[in-house]
Amino acid sequence: MSPACRLSIALVHYPVWNKNQEVVATAVTNLDIHDIARSARTFGVARYYIVTPLAEQQKLVEKIRQHWIEGWGAGYNPKRKMALELLQTESSLDDALRDIEARTGRRAKLVVTGAAGRGNSVSFAGLKGVMEAEADQHYLLLLGTGWGLTEEVFNRGDYLLEPISGGSDYNHLSVRSAAAIMLDRLFGR
Amino acid sequence: MSPACRLSIALVHYPVWNKNQEVVATAVTNLDIHDIARSARTFGVARYYIVTPLAEQQKLVEKIRQHWIEGWGAGYNPKRKMALELLQTESSLDDALRDIEARTGRRAKLVVTGAAGRGNSVSFAGLKGVMEAEADQHYLLLLGTGWGLTEEVFNRGDYLLEPISGGSDYNHLSVRSAAAIMLDRLFGR
Repeated sequence: MSPACRLSIALVHYPVWNKNQEVVATAVTNLDIHDIARSARTFGVARYYIVTPLAEQQKLVEKIRQHWIEGWGAGYNPKRKMALELLQTESSLDDALRDIEARTGRRAKLVVTGAAGRGNSVSFAGLKGVMEAEADQHYLLLLGTGWGLTEEVFNRGDYLLEPISGGSDYNHLSVRSAAAIMLDRLFGR
Repeated sequence: MSPACRLSIALVHYPVWNKNQEVVATAVTNLDIHDIARSARTFGVARYYIVTPLAEQQKLVEKIRQHWIEGWGAGYNPKRKMALELLQTESSLDDALRDIEARTGRRAKLVVTGAAGRGNSVSFAGLKGVMEAEADQHYLLLLGTGWGLTEEVFNRGDYLLEPISGGSDYNHLSVRSAAAIMLDRLFGR
Protein backbone atom coordinates (compact mmCIF):
# COMPACT_ATOMS: atom_id res chain seq x y z
CA MET A 1 0.00 0.00 0.00
CA SER A 2 1.22 3.48 -0.81
CA PRO A 3 2.16 5.63 2.19
CA ALA A 4 -0.86 7.98 1.90
CA CYS A 5 -3.42 5.17 2.27
CA ARG A 6 -1.67 4.09 5.46
CA LEU A 7 -2.20 7.52 7.00
CA SER A 8 -5.36 8.85 8.62
CA ILE A 9 -5.97 12.32 10.00
CA ALA A 10 -7.64 13.25 13.28
CA LEU A 11 -8.81 16.80 13.85
CA VAL A 12 -8.81 16.96 17.63
CA HIS A 13 -11.36 19.16 19.43
CA TYR A 14 -10.50 17.76 22.86
CA PRO A 15 -8.16 17.93 24.69
CA VAL A 16 -6.76 21.22 23.33
CA TRP A 17 -5.62 24.52 24.83
CA ASN A 18 -7.65 27.68 24.65
CA LYS A 19 -6.11 31.16 24.51
CA ASN A 20 -5.74 31.23 28.31
CA GLN A 21 -3.90 27.88 28.57
CA GLU A 22 -6.96 26.05 29.82
CA VAL A 23 -7.86 22.59 28.52
CA VAL A 24 -11.13 22.80 26.58
CA ALA A 25 -13.31 21.14 23.96
CA THR A 26 -13.55 23.46 20.93
CA ALA A 27 -16.55 23.78 18.63
CA VAL A 28 -16.52 22.07 15.25
CA THR A 29 -16.09 24.45 12.28
CA ASN A 30 -17.94 23.59 9.08
CA LEU A 31 -15.07 24.53 6.78
CA ASP A 32 -12.63 22.38 8.76
CA ILE A 33 -14.78 19.43 7.81
CA HIS A 34 -14.94 20.30 4.12
CA ASP A 35 -11.46 21.67 3.49
CA ILE A 36 -9.54 18.92 5.26
CA ALA A 37 -11.74 16.19 3.73
CA ARG A 38 -11.02 17.62 0.27
CA SER A 39 -7.29 17.76 0.98
CA ALA A 40 -7.35 14.23 2.41
CA ARG A 41 -9.12 12.90 -0.68
CA THR A 42 -6.76 14.77 -3.03
CA PHE A 43 -3.69 13.21 -1.42
CA GLY A 44 -5.20 9.72 -1.00
CA VAL A 45 -5.44 9.61 2.80
CA ALA A 46 -7.25 6.62 4.36
CA ARG A 47 -9.66 8.25 6.82
CA TYR A 48 -10.46 11.64 8.33
CA TYR A 49 -11.62 11.59 11.95
CA ILE A 50 -13.32 14.46 13.74
CA VAL A 51 -12.58 13.86 17.41
CA THR A 52 -15.00 15.43 19.88
CA PRO A 53 -16.54 14.04 23.07
CA LEU A 54 -19.57 16.38 22.81
CA ALA A 55 -22.69 14.53 21.67
CA GLU A 56 -24.30 17.65 20.15
CA GLN A 57 -21.18 18.36 18.12
CA GLN A 58 -21.04 14.75 16.93
CA LYS A 59 -24.65 15.05 15.78
CA LEU A 60 -23.82 18.25 13.90
CA VAL A 61 -20.93 16.60 12.05
CA GLU A 62 -23.08 13.60 11.25
CA LYS A 63 -25.81 15.86 9.88
CA ILE A 64 -23.35 17.62 7.60
CA ARG A 65 -21.87 14.30 6.50
CA GLN A 66 -25.25 12.82 5.66
CA HIS A 67 -26.31 15.92 3.73
CA TRP A 68 -23.37 15.47 1.37
CA ILE A 69 -23.21 11.67 1.32
CA GLU A 70 -26.87 10.71 1.09
CA GLY A 71 -28.88 13.91 1.06
CA TRP A 72 -29.41 16.71 -1.41
CA GLY A 73 -25.70 17.53 -1.52
CA ALA A 74 -24.75 14.11 -2.93
CA GLY A 75 -26.50 14.87 -6.22
CA TYR A 76 -25.58 18.54 -6.24
CA ASN A 77 -21.86 17.94 -5.83
CA PRO A 78 -20.62 14.33 -6.25
CA LYS A 79 -17.02 15.51 -5.82
CA ARG A 80 -17.84 16.73 -2.33
CA LYS A 81 -19.47 13.36 -1.61
CA MET A 82 -16.21 11.62 -2.55
CA ALA A 83 -14.33 13.78 -0.06
CA LEU A 84 -16.79 13.47 2.81
CA GLU A 85 -16.92 9.70 2.47
CA LEU A 86 -13.59 9.78 4.34
CA LEU A 87 -15.20 11.54 7.30
CA GLN A 88 -15.94 9.81 10.59
CA THR A 89 -16.71 11.11 14.08
CA GLU A 90 -15.07 9.60 17.14
CA SER A 91 -15.40 10.53 20.80
CA SER A 92 -11.71 10.30 21.61
CA LEU A 93 -8.29 9.73 20.19
CA ASP A 94 -8.38 6.18 21.55
CA ASP A 95 -11.64 5.51 19.74
CA ALA A 96 -10.03 6.66 16.49
CA LEU A 97 -7.07 4.35 17.14
CA ARG A 98 -9.44 1.46 17.84
CA ASP A 99 -11.25 2.15 14.56
CA ILE A 100 -7.99 2.05 12.61
CA GLU A 101 -7.05 -1.20 14.36
CA ALA A 102 -10.44 -2.71 13.50
CA ARG A 103 -10.03 -1.69 9.86
CA THR A 104 -6.40 -2.62 9.34
CA GLY A 105 -5.46 -5.06 12.08
CA ARG A 106 -2.64 -2.71 13.07
CA ARG A 107 -2.17 -0.24 15.88
CA ALA A 108 -1.43 3.11 14.24
CA LYS A 109 1.56 5.18 15.27
CA LEU A 110 0.73 8.71 16.37
CA VAL A 111 2.21 11.70 14.54
CA VAL A 112 1.70 14.86 16.59
CA THR A 113 1.79 18.33 15.02
CA GLY A 114 1.95 21.88 16.32
CA ALA A 115 3.06 25.36 15.32
CA ALA A 116 5.73 25.73 18.01
CA GLY A 117 9.16 24.20 17.55
CA ARG A 118 10.17 21.50 20.05
CA GLY A 119 13.11 19.18 20.45
CA ASN A 120 13.21 15.70 18.90
CA SER A 121 10.98 16.54 15.97
CA VAL A 122 11.10 14.61 12.72
CA SER A 123 11.33 16.52 9.42
CA PHE A 124 8.78 16.01 6.66
CA ALA A 125 11.42 14.19 4.60
CA GLY A 126 12.29 12.10 7.65
CA LEU A 127 8.69 11.03 8.25
CA LYS A 128 8.25 10.29 4.55
CA GLY A 129 11.31 8.03 4.73
CA VAL A 130 10.00 6.25 7.82
CA MET A 131 6.61 5.67 6.18
CA GLU A 132 8.21 4.22 3.08
CA ALA A 133 10.51 1.97 5.11
CA GLU A 134 7.77 0.59 7.39
CA ALA A 135 5.56 -0.70 4.60
CA ASP A 136 2.82 -2.27 6.76
CA GLN A 137 2.58 0.39 9.42
CA HIS A 138 -0.42 2.72 9.78
CA TYR A 139 -0.20 6.29 11.06
CA LEU A 140 -2.59 8.77 12.61
CA LEU A 141 -1.69 12.43 12.04
CA LEU A 142 -3.08 14.61 14.85
CA LEU A 143 -4.11 18.18 14.15
CA GLY A 144 -5.06 20.46 17.03
CA THR A 145 -7.82 23.05 17.03
CA GLY A 146 -8.05 26.08 19.36
CA TRP A 147 -4.57 26.96 20.64
CA GLY A 148 -3.19 23.49 19.93
CA LEU A 149 -2.86 19.96 21.30
CA THR A 150 -2.16 19.59 25.02
CA GLU A 151 1.04 18.20 26.53
CA GLU A 152 -0.82 15.00 27.34
CA VAL A 153 -1.35 14.42 23.62
CA PHE A 154 2.18 15.50 22.68
CA ASN A 155 3.59 13.00 25.18
CA ARG A 156 1.72 10.16 23.50
CA GLY A 157 3.18 10.88 20.05
CA ASP A 158 5.43 8.31 18.37
CA TYR A 159 6.62 11.11 16.10
CA LEU A 160 6.56 14.86 16.56
CA LEU A 161 6.44 16.50 13.15
CA GLU A 162 8.48 19.67 12.62
CA PRO A 163 6.44 22.90 12.40
CA ILE A 164 5.81 24.45 9.00
CA SER A 165 8.11 27.39 8.43
CA GLY A 166 7.40 29.97 5.77
CA GLY A 167 10.78 31.62 6.24
CA SER A 168 9.25 34.57 8.12
CA ASP A 169 8.89 35.27 11.83
CA TYR A 170 5.15 34.61 11.52
CA ASN A 171 3.80 31.11 11.93
CA HIS A 172 0.04 31.24 12.38
CA LEU A 173 -1.52 29.22 9.62
CA SER A 174 -5.10 28.01 9.94
CA VAL A 175 -5.41 24.30 10.71
CA ARG A 176 -6.98 23.91 7.25
CA SER A 177 -3.97 25.46 5.54
CA ALA A 178 -1.50 23.59 7.73
CA ALA A 179 -3.19 20.27 6.94
CA ALA A 180 -3.02 20.98 3.21
CA ILE A 181 0.68 21.85 3.34
CA MET A 182 1.52 18.82 5.49
CA LEU A 183 -0.18 16.40 3.11
CA ASP A 184 1.47 18.06 0.12
CA ARG A 185 4.91 17.86 1.73
CA LEU A 186 4.37 14.18 2.56
CA PHE A 187 2.54 12.95 -0.55
CA GLY A 188 2.38 15.70 -3.19
CA ARG A 189 4.03 15.21 -6.55
CA MET B 1 14.04 41.81 -2.43
CA SER B 2 13.26 38.18 -1.77
CA PRO B 3 10.86 36.56 -4.25
CA ALA B 4 7.93 36.36 -1.79
CA CYS B 5 7.81 40.11 -1.18
CA ARG B 6 7.60 40.65 -4.94
CA LEU B 7 4.46 38.53 -5.14
CA SER B 8 0.91 39.61 -4.32
CA ILE B 9 -2.22 37.47 -4.32
CA ALA B 10 -5.62 38.35 -5.76
CA LEU B 11 -8.65 36.30 -4.78
CA VAL B 12 -10.92 36.95 -7.74
CA HIS B 13 -14.71 37.02 -7.22
CA TYR B 14 -15.40 38.35 -10.71
CA PRO B 15 -15.17 37.26 -13.48
CA VAL B 16 -15.44 33.57 -12.53
CA TRP B 17 -17.50 30.60 -13.69
CA ASN B 18 -20.39 29.19 -11.73
CA LYS B 19 -21.38 25.51 -11.78
CA ASN B 20 -23.39 26.04 -15.00
CA GLN B 21 -20.56 27.72 -16.94
CA GLU B 22 -22.04 31.18 -16.54
CA VAL B 23 -19.87 34.18 -15.70
CA VAL B 24 -20.78 35.45 -12.25
CA ALA B 25 -19.60 37.47 -9.25
CA THR B 26 -19.30 35.14 -6.26
CA ALA B 27 -19.90 36.10 -2.63
CA VAL B 28 -16.97 36.75 -0.33
CA THR B 29 -16.33 34.00 2.25
CA ASN B 30 -15.09 35.08 5.66
CA LEU B 31 -12.61 32.23 6.03
CA ASP B 32 -11.10 32.96 2.60
CA ILE B 33 -10.14 36.34 3.98
CA HIS B 34 -8.58 34.97 7.15
CA ASP B 35 -6.95 31.78 5.92
CA ILE B 36 -5.31 33.25 2.85
CA ALA B 37 -4.16 36.35 4.76
CA ARG B 38 -2.54 34.10 7.38
CA SER B 39 -0.84 32.00 4.68
CA ALA B 40 0.28 35.16 2.85
CA ARG B 41 1.80 36.57 6.05
CA THR B 42 3.48 33.26 6.91
CA PHE B 43 5.23 33.10 3.55
CA GLY B 44 6.09 36.81 3.37
CA VAL B 45 3.80 37.82 0.49
CA ALA B 46 3.52 41.57 -0.31
CA ARG B 47 -0.23 42.14 -0.52
CA TYR B 48 -3.50 40.21 -0.54
CA TYR B 49 -6.25 41.65 -2.75
CA ILE B 50 -9.90 40.69 -2.57
CA VAL B 51 -11.25 41.51 -6.03
CA THR B 52 -14.99 42.14 -6.24
CA PRO B 53 -16.95 44.78 -8.16
CA LEU B 54 -19.90 44.57 -5.72
CA ALA B 55 -20.03 47.59 -3.40
CA GLU B 56 -21.85 45.71 -0.63
CA GLN B 57 -19.26 42.95 -0.69
CA GLN B 58 -16.45 45.49 -0.58
CA LYS B 59 -18.07 47.06 2.50
CA LEU B 60 -18.30 43.65 4.16
CA VAL B 61 -14.60 42.96 3.60
CA GLU B 62 -13.70 46.41 4.85
CA LYS B 63 -15.79 45.87 7.98
CA ILE B 64 -14.01 42.59 8.72
CA ARG B 65 -10.63 44.19 8.03
CA GLN B 66 -11.30 47.11 10.35
CA HIS B 67 -12.55 44.84 13.13
CA TRP B 68 -9.21 43.05 13.19
CA ILE B 69 -6.92 45.98 12.35
CA GLU B 70 -8.40 48.77 14.43
CA GLY B 71 -11.37 47.35 16.30
CA TRP B 72 -11.83 44.91 19.14
CA GLY B 73 -10.06 42.13 17.26
CA ALA B 74 -6.76 44.03 17.11
CA GLY B 75 -6.31 43.75 20.86
CA TYR B 76 -7.83 40.29 21.13
CA ASN B 77 -5.54 38.73 18.51
CA PRO B 78 -2.54 40.82 17.38
CA LYS B 79 -1.35 37.93 15.20
CA ARG B 80 -4.54 38.13 13.18
CA LYS B 81 -4.00 41.89 12.87
CA MET B 82 -0.56 41.25 11.36
CA ALA B 83 -2.12 38.96 8.75
CA LEU B 84 -5.06 41.19 7.85
CA GLU B 85 -2.80 44.21 7.40
CA LEU B 86 -1.97 42.66 4.02
CA LEU B 87 -5.63 42.75 2.98
CA GLN B 88 -6.98 45.24 0.46
CA THR B 89 -10.19 45.36 -1.57
CA GLU B 90 -10.14 46.26 -5.25
CA SER B 91 -12.99 46.47 -7.76
CA SER B 92 -11.15 44.73 -10.57
CA LEU B 93 -8.00 42.95 -11.55
CA ASP B 94 -6.83 46.12 -13.30
CA ASP B 95 -7.31 48.13 -10.12
CA ALA B 96 -5.15 45.61 -8.26
CA LEU B 97 -2.48 45.91 -10.97
CA ARG B 98 -2.63 49.70 -10.73
CA ASP B 99 -2.18 49.51 -6.97
CA ILE B 100 0.93 47.35 -7.34
CA GLU B 101 2.30 49.76 -9.93
CA ALA B 102 1.66 52.70 -7.60
CA ARG B 103 3.44 50.90 -4.75
CA THR B 104 6.38 49.48 -6.64
CA GLY B 105 6.74 51.46 -9.84
CA ARG B 106 6.49 48.20 -11.77
CA ARG B 107 3.74 46.54 -13.74
CA ALA B 108 3.22 43.11 -12.18
CA LYS B 109 3.20 39.98 -14.32
CA LEU B 110 0.07 37.87 -13.97
CA VAL B 111 0.31 34.27 -12.77
CA VAL B 112 -2.97 32.45 -13.44
CA THR B 113 -3.99 29.30 -11.53
CA GLY B 114 -6.66 26.65 -11.92
CA ALA B 115 -7.39 23.04 -11.04
CA ALA B 116 -7.58 21.79 -14.63
CA GLY B 117 -4.42 20.96 -16.57
CA ARG B 118 -3.76 23.06 -19.69
CA GLY B 119 -0.94 23.32 -22.18
CA ASN B 120 1.98 25.73 -21.75
CA SER B 121 1.87 25.73 -17.97
CA VAL B 122 4.92 26.53 -15.86
CA SER B 123 5.88 24.19 -13.01
CA PHE B 124 6.28 25.47 -9.46
CA ALA B 125 10.05 24.99 -9.74
CA GLY B 126 9.97 26.79 -13.08
CA LEU B 127 8.14 29.80 -11.69
CA LYS B 128 10.44 29.88 -8.69
CA GLY B 129 13.41 30.00 -11.05
CA VAL B 130 11.85 32.79 -13.11
CA MET B 131 11.15 34.83 -9.97
CA GLU B 132 14.70 34.45 -8.75
CA ALA B 133 16.15 35.35 -12.16
CA GLU B 134 13.99 38.49 -12.66
CA ALA B 135 15.06 40.19 -9.45
CA ASP B 136 13.09 43.43 -9.87
CA GLN B 137 9.89 42.01 -11.30
CA HIS B 138 6.62 41.92 -9.35
CA TYR B 139 3.98 39.22 -9.75
CA LEU B 140 0.27 38.92 -9.07
CA LEU B 141 -0.96 35.37 -8.39
CA LEU B 142 -4.62 35.00 -9.35
CA LEU B 143 -6.86 32.58 -7.46
CA GLY B 144 -10.36 31.91 -8.71
CA THR B 145 -13.45 31.40 -6.57
CA GLY B 146 -16.65 29.61 -7.65
CA TRP B 147 -15.86 27.21 -10.50
CA GLY B 148 -12.67 29.05 -11.43
CA LEU B 149 -11.26 31.94 -13.45
CA THR B 150 -12.79 32.61 -16.87
CA GLU B 151 -10.99 32.22 -20.20
CA GLU B 152 -10.76 35.99 -20.43
CA VAL B 153 -8.58 36.00 -17.31
CA PHE B 154 -6.57 32.94 -18.38
CA ASN B 155 -5.78 34.64 -21.68
CA ARG B 156 -4.29 37.63 -19.86
CA GLY B 157 -1.84 35.50 -17.85
CA ASP B 158 1.90 35.93 -18.36
CA TYR B 159 2.32 32.55 -16.67
CA LEU B 160 -0.10 29.69 -16.23
CA LEU B 161 0.87 27.74 -13.11
CA GLU B 162 0.58 23.95 -13.23
CA PRO B 163 -2.34 22.49 -11.21
CA ILE B 164 -1.61 20.90 -7.84
CA SER B 165 -1.60 17.15 -8.11
CA GLY B 166 -1.93 14.92 -5.07
CA GLY B 167 -1.16 11.79 -7.07
CA SER B 168 -4.81 10.70 -7.05
CA ASP B 169 -7.58 11.12 -9.65
CA TYR B 170 -9.20 13.70 -7.36
CA ASN B 171 -8.25 17.34 -7.62
CA HIS B 172 -10.78 19.46 -5.77
CA LEU B 173 -8.95 21.40 -3.11
CA SER B 174 -10.55 24.44 -1.53
CA VAL B 175 -9.08 27.73 -2.73
CA ARG B 176 -7.79 28.23 0.83
CA SER B 177 -5.90 24.92 0.76
CA ALA B 178 -4.66 25.46 -2.79
CA ALA B 179 -3.31 28.91 -1.88
CA ALA B 180 -1.45 27.47 1.12
CA ILE B 181 0.15 24.72 -0.94
CA MET B 182 1.12 27.10 -3.77
CA LEU B 183 2.86 29.50 -1.39
CA ASP B 184 4.61 26.62 0.35
CA ARG B 185 5.83 25.18 -2.95
CA LEU B 186 7.11 28.59 -4.05
CA PHE B 187 8.53 29.95 -0.80
CA GLY B 188 8.40 27.29 1.95
CA ARG B 189 11.60 26.07 3.55
